[in-house]
Amino acid sequence: MSEENIVYVGNKPVMNYVLAVVTQINNGALEVYLKARGRAISRAVDVAEIVRNRFVTDIEVGQISIDTEEVVDDNGVTNVSIIEIPLHR
Amino acid sequence: MSEENIVYVGNKPVMNYVLAVVTQINNGALEVYLKARGRAISRAVDVAEIVRNRFVTDIEVGQISIDTEEVVDDNGVTNVSIIEIPLHR
Repeated sequence: MSEENIVYVGNKPVMNYVLAVVTQINNGALEVYLKARGRAISRAVDVAEIVRNRFVTDIEVGQISIDTEEVVDDNGVTNVSIIEIPLHR
Repeated sequence: MSEENIVYVGNKPVMNYVLAVVTQINNGALEVYLKARGRAISRAVDVAEIVRNRFVTDIEVGQISIDTEEVVDDNGVTNVSIIEIPLHR
């Protein structure tokens, strides 16, 4: 998958990410991957659901995968959960 | 699936839910379903990852599903995302 087909979901308002996904699909992308970690995971699910229910009703949610990443910060190494949600037409 | 095989993840500390899953598996459950909605979705993913990485290393994450539920509260009807994470041996 090309880097353009990935939308990284962070702490911005959910509609920012919805718009990013819808834009990619309107530009011809057949598959978009939502990626998020930590607390943004809930928001990534919201993005997928809003896109699917309100904007691109023929999109399907593919095989969702979860994993753990190590993050190094001032407090040392901590584990953070990550999610990847594929959306495809 | 029987009701006992479902762990509803809410706002308690993550280890409460990890313990609930591990207890069910130690009692012979072959499959446990984690369910969460809204912001607790991130915590449900944490529970799955902690169980898998630290406690029951032969468990596998099945097909994760997401959906939207309508919640009626004082402010009217709002949509909330939900997740279901099956864990099985």
